[in-house]
Amino acid sequence: MFTITFVLEGAAPVTIDANANENLLDVARKANVAIDAPCSGNGACGKCRVRLAEGYLDSPQNRHITSEEYEAGWRLACCSKVVGDATIEVPDIASAYRSRMKIADLDSPEEIAIFDNLRQQMLEAGFAFQSDLSFLPLELSEPTLDDTMPDNERVIRAVEKATGCPYENIIMPYSVLRDLSWVLRESEWHVKCVISRDGDRIHIRDVLPSENTDPIVGFALDLGTTSLAGLLVDLQSGKILAKASCGNGQIRYGADVINRIIESEKRGGRRRLQDAVVKESIIPMLVQMYQSANINPRRIYRMVLAGNTTMNHLLLGLYSDPVRMEPFVPSFFRTNYIYVRDIGLKMNPLAELVVAPNIGSYVGGDITAGAFASMIWNSPEMSLFIDLGTNGELVFGNNEFLMSCACSAGPAFEGGDISCGMRATDGAIEACTIDKETMEPTLTVIGGGAPVGICGSGIIDIIAELFRCGIINGKGKLVREGKRVLHDEHGMGSFVLAFQSETGGAKDVVINEVDIDNFIRAKGAIFSATTTMLHSLGFDPSVIERVYVAGGIGSGINMKNAVTIGMFPDISLDHFHYIGNSSQTGAYAMLLSQGAREKVDELSRSMTYLELSNEPQYMDNFVASCFLPHTDASLFPSVQEELGL
Amino acid sequence: MFTITFVLEGAAPVTIDANANENLLDVARKANVAIDAPCSGNGACGKCRVRLAEGYLDSPQNRHITSEEYEAGWRLACCSKVVGDATIEVPDIASAYRSRMKIADLDSPEEIAIFDNLRQQMLEAGFAFQSDLSFLPLELSEPTLDDTMPDNERVIRAVEKATGCPYENIIMPYSVLRDLSWVLRESEWHVKCVISRDGDRIHIRDVLPSENTDPIVGFALDLGTTSLAGLLVDLQSGKILAKASCGNGQIRYGADVINRIIESEKRGGRRRLQDAVVKESIIPMLVQMYQSANINPRRIYRMVLAGNTTMNHLLLGLYSDPVRMEPFVPSFFRTNYIYVRDIGLKMNPLAELVVAPNIGSYVGGDITAGAFASMIWNSPEMSLFIDLGTNGELVFGNNEFLMSCACSAGPAFEGGDISCGMRATDGAIEACTIDKETMEPTLTVIGGGAPVGICGSGIIDIIAELFRCGIINGKGKLVREGKRVLHDEHGMGSFVLAFQSETGGAKDVVINEVDIDNFIRAKGAIFSATTTMLHSLGFDPSVIERVYVAGGIGSGINMKNAVTIGMFPDISLDHFHYIGNSSQTGAYAMLLSQGAREKVDELSRSMTYLELSNEPQYMDNFVASCFLPHTDASLFPSVQEELGL
Repeated sequence: MFTITFVLEGAAPVTIDANANENLLDVARKANVAIDAPCSGNGACGKCRVRLAEGYLDSPQNRHITSEEYEAGWRLACCSKVVGDATIEVPDIASAYRSRMKIADLDSPEEIAIFDNLRQQMLEAGFAFQSDLSFLPLELSEPTLDDTMPDNERVIRAVEKATGCPYENIIMPYSVLRDLSWVLRESEWHVKCVISRDGDRIHIRDVLPSENTDPIVGFALDLGTTSLAGLLVDLQSGKILAKASCGNGQIRYGADVINRIIESEKRGGRRRLQDAVVKESIIPMLVQMYQSANINPRRIYRMVLAGNTTMNHLLLGLYSDPVRMEPFVPSFFRTNYIYVRDIGLKMNPLAELVVAPNIGSYVGGDITAGAFASMIWNSPEMSLFIDLGTNGELVFGNNEFLMSCACSAGPAFEGGDISCGMRATDGAIEACTIDKETMEPTLTVIGGGAPVGICGSGIIDIIAELFRCGIINGKGKLVREGKRVLHDEHGMGSFVLAFQSETGGAKDVVINEVDIDNFIRAKGAIFSATTTMLHSLGFDPSVIERVYVAGGIGSGINMKNAVTIGMFPDISLDHFHYIGNSSQTGAYAMLLSQGAREKVDELSRSMTYLELSNEPQYMDNFVASCFLPHTDASLFPSVQEELGL
Repeated sequence: MFTITFVLEGAAPVTIDANANENLLDVARKANVAIDAPCSGNGACGKCRVRLAEGYLDSPQNRHITSEEYEAGWRLACCSKVVGDATIEVPDIASAYRSRMKIADLDSPEEIAIFDNLRQQMLEAGFAFQSDLSFLPLELSEPTLDDTMPDNERVIRAVEKATGCPYENIIMPYSVLRDLSWVLRESEWHVKCVISRDGDRIHIRDVLPSENTDPIVGFALDLGTTSLAGLLVDLQSGKILAKASCGNGQIRYGADVINRIIESEKRGGRRRLQDAVVKESIIPMLVQMYQSANINPRRIYRMVLAGNTTMNHLLLGLYSDPVRMEPFVPSFFRTNYIYVRDIGLKMNPLAELVVAPNIGSYVGGDITAGAFASMIWNSPEMSLFIDLGTNGELVFGNNEFLMSCACSAGPAFEGGDISCGMRATDGAIEACTIDKETMEPTLTVIGGGAPVGICGSGIIDIIAELFRCGIINGKGKLVREGKRVLHDEHGMGSFVLAFQSETGGAKDVVINEVDIDNFIRAKGAIFSATTTMLHSLGFDPSVIERVYVAGGIGSGINMKNAVTIGMFPDISLDHFHYIGNSSQTGAYAMLLSQGAREKVDELSRSMTYLELSNEPQYMDNFVASCFLPHTDASLFPSVQEELGL
């Protein structure tokens, strides 16, 4: 038995006993020390870097660690075995999460336009923005010795009189009864109820003093594998009161859903995975929003959750193994009568948790909500909806049919699997042009400061420009020389977008051949999914009239460049539409409109699902798509023409 | 600031800082040290005895402490002020509570007879013993690649098919969804549901493996001011699975409801009072029952609570001041959609809490449930139902009308306010005769061992016999001399029922003139309530055809003696019926029969309530009744004749 001491930034060191040959990442998890481990410990991602400050570890050097770094003590935790006492310095992942958490700018024109546009389209499609939650003012008579009706009956009778709902169908839960006598007397019998309807019943959700000015609030959560985005919304005006995003705390149990399910099946794993997202991500995000918008959590009466099937299951603490094992049968597609308290959130005690319905183990509520928000179901045009999340999901169709599929594109669009990758937030390179002669890049950085990393839209631009300038070839290999083209000791090439010395940034920002290769495979997965799905319907890409792109890739996405690299089909550029985080806007629509909830449910029932792995041509299509723009360049005539391929 | 150390039996000492002149009982409460204080600290009851082992207290001697005891360090905590550091020995009240907690003998003939009799009468009155909770076996088809219906839908579809209830009206809560996938696979798709109906909806309460043999269990709780009695019942067979009783842990905040309401209005008081009964009484009682009958708490799907209005409010943690303040308007008479989890009990997560309805601030669910169990509403005979709890409540009427009232009889019938009083449990003198010549008593002790104290039925016998033998006069004063008649230094007389030396008991068991006076006032309250209520209806006691006596006074109650002391009206003795703890049997009936629940609700709505304090003649009646048997002996002709009054 050896003693391992973890030294953390901004926290007391943690000491734990470990057995010889125990894996250091496992030891850290036992000690509740958070180490970023997207690949869940198989040495693939290189993110679980720690520094051996003292003592011994059995830990070989590998491609993620340079010789200088190895000399300085840097090791991958997942590739290290305990062989003696050791002191390990751990980078502050918690602070990294916190810094990634962000109260979004509610006033940005793009944000406003996306939500305005959705509301406008919903109105045109005939959806009423009328919540079933409403205020009901009550003027009660004060009891006397001749009128000793108890308090709850006094309120219920008044609701009966005001609404016509029969007494026995009016429900007052304990959470309202609990403080009722006090509220009635403090308010001197001038109160307002928050009520909702459920079939022929009325639920009294709250009884508040008349002068209380709190709005009726709803919470929309886009629960992504990599990141979360939340909105607090005034359910009566539709106004967005607060908006925030953050990383998914489950990431240290694996970057992808399969590794997380495997982790959740270990002893106590369901609880661990649930806690990681609820306690480390959702609750801190909510607290930030409560503070920024001065919101009382008890006034939140409903939550809409849009997430993929696995994320939904892990959030609810469900047994998720059947999601990944044949015949791929999850616990649910649709839920009813689930409450936010069931996942440990403290809002109004009877706040419902509305889960956007899943339609399969690999197409979840984020896509049904997103497909709603894309409005492709409301038009005769043949439209393709692409959600670039941690995986890629596609929906194709129009107002007569819809088909969906999912492809393993990986997290590259959100900056995962990319050495300098990051989400589309301050410091991210979101756009880039490169001078063909000088090979000098011109960068657009979110927030305008020094570049810190590259988000999805930036990577598309960079690869397209490198290809356009002949700096990389169709396979993504660097084929020109210059001051920005470097090769390491293993021969791996990289292109420096910003030397630290140029920008005063935190470090050099580069893209290397492994990054490019990862991204080409990701875009190849999207395009091959597109062609395979169309083929299954007897179509080819020329049938596509509109493309709606959604996801965390960022509003800066350059559609021309995305076509140039062969990610999207080669149609007229003004038929591309970036619709933002459609999982979030879909959840927002479901919060505001009962009709939208019903429509999403209908979409989930009517949409067919194509399992790509059952399509024999998918793998061939994928291999052919892992090239710039494609091994069959004739599929991209505009690119062929521009670049003379 | 001084340091007070409380020395407890079987627990570590507790040390707390206290200010000069702080009350010792308050200091103990702050330190979470339980001291029995039925009168809530006004020096009246003498129960909060502690021993000053070291240091100083400002604490005068008083009538509850003899000179020898004072010398030995005994003090009343409520009458002691901090004046320096002190070490205080505290009698082990927790262990006293535990020893008072009792798993009742389910096989005693009296017990069996009471429940059998109730079931028989209910059947004759047309009540079906059919719970709305039932098992539904389901044989599910195992999913395949061609049948990937999610687990929840698979179950709901099967319930739809088996019951005919439409899919959308079948509710599966989170508590079932949570482990559903696991249960289905572990049971290899052979399961049974526990379902219940609510209007046109079906709730799936549980999904269990087919081979699970747990019964569907209900919990009936009689929540008394002084003591609690609980039953666990198989809701399908009606079989009583476990039975237990214990003291109400709130007693240290006051013996009566008013003191407890006052305490509950202090900062944190609602939570304190709720915790005292839930955590110190109900949960330990349940745990004992779970163990004795091998019951899984998750299989308890419903709880029926029968308690007085204040007890109901304090259990629910409600603001109770309006119950005691004019115009006496409580939070509720009836509740709906309240769950056991709302009061912090962990049973099945959706187990309902059915509260027997109150009909006023001073006539609660114990009386509506009890009046149901008395069946007086089902007969043309003019009947009087008397519940001798901590207070006395009466219902008079027949199948055409019912009137109720409450009188402040105090806790004497349950052994409260009596120096050697105790509940009707092992060691209690439950009956007594006294030889007129020798003045020697013959005692009947519950359990057959040495006498420890006197329960209600024993006190009635003792006072009747003392009166019959001329040992006490009509005012309850000792008027004969003998070896068993003692007088203390203040001149207060007492009669020794059992010298410790005779019986080998723990101490002398005596009754003194204060006890007798307390009891005469209690019986006087009952009789004057009877005559006042009858008078308000234009009747006198001769109209009474049947008397049903209920309460913790014990099945050994001697009706002749109760008439002799002027407690009950002087009617033919075979028209008296002891019906046990009718609050508990009523709750039992409500658990087993939806019809009984509806009937109790109907009784609560139709029963009129007489506020005795508004009746001008009540006080005169009370004063006249505080005499043996009554200042107007002609009201008791049989006693007049027997004793030659």
